[in-house]
Amino acid sequence: MNNHEIRLSGSGGQGIITAGIILAEAALLDGRNALQSQSYGPEARGGASKAEVIISDEEIDYPKVSAPGILLALTQEAFNNYVQGVTAEGVILVDESITANPSANQHIFRLPILETAQARLRPVVANIIALGAMAKLTGCVSLDALEKAVLARVPRGTEDLNKRALATGVELAENQQKYN
Amino acid sequence: MNNHEIRLSGSGGQGIITAGIILAEAALLDGRNALQSQSYGPEARGGASKAEVIISDEEIDYPKVSAPGILLALTQEAFNNYVQGVTAEGVILVDESITANPSANQHIFRLPILETAQARLRPVVANIIALGAMAKLTGCVSLDALEKAVLARVPRGTEDLNKRALATGVELAENQQKYN
Repeated sequence: MNNHEIRLSGSGGQGIITAGIILAEAALLDGRNALQSQSYGPEARGGASKAEVIISDEEIDYPKVSAPGILLALTQEAFNNYVQGVTAEGVILVDESITANPSANQHIFRLPILETAQARLRPVVANIIALGAMAKLTGCVSLDALEKAVLARVPRGTEDLNKRALATGVELAENQQKYN
Repeated sequence: MNNHEIRLSGSGGQGIITAGIILAEAALLDGRNALQSQSYGPEARGGASKAEVIISDEEIDYPKVSAPGILLALTQEAFNNYVQGVTAEGVILVDESITANPSANQHIFRLPILETAQARLRPVVANIIALGAMAKLTGCVSLDALEKAVLARVPRGTEDLNKRALATGVELAENQQKYN
């Protein structure tokens, strides 16, 4: 299996850090190792939120993502800040509201994550929709492990909502149009 | 102000990761930079939980804690695993249930964190009690910032409980007996 360096980005309140923790916990359930980190500095003061996850079969001793192979961006600002760091063959998953011009070999997927969360579920589960789509598009974690990790981490009483959010993300990925 | 490298450790379900995130967010509210990380590997499979926080006035580019100056250990296993890594002049905060033999210059504080959570509040807020005690004992974050960070991160409807947990941790630290 491949190693993955993943950057999740958006604004505060979008559940970016929770998504990072869930992704790392899913990797653990897949029998792999993971390291999850977030930095708080000037960007966070401006309301931006970023979390990073490294998934590997080896012990991980390089805890900061330098060139992610997978980027999630839920805001235009996050996309603008981080798109340049993505590897040449990387996968970029962004909300449909984002205007995106990736490099030639990058694979970009624009999905209606925020709108679907609001219209069909609840805005707070946009992060879980994004995780479902990411797992489906990249295989970075298995869908089984991801569902277990989601259910173990979300508040009690919201399990059904989050299960539906995950399935919705998978469905969006299946119906996606790949740009580029 | 000093830089801090902090390791929080215990078992799964004790809210160790949440505590790490809250501590980093408090540091941000104090106007400082922070990096928070957790690794998931063989130890996590055994039910152990560990989170690390680095607090600094500079940008942080060494994201893994090597020798923490502050260690929190809520289980004997966590203490046994991590006590040797603490700096010679480090501060070690452990639950009262733990048998602790620190090195000569380390400062160890044994506080009834778990018992107090269970008897006076609720077991789930042991992590918040621990944060209150840690902030009081070490000054790693201000109590004002810590309270704001706690209230911003805990589930809605539990704000009062968590405020009381924080105050209880501060109180335990004020009444502490320092061993060694």
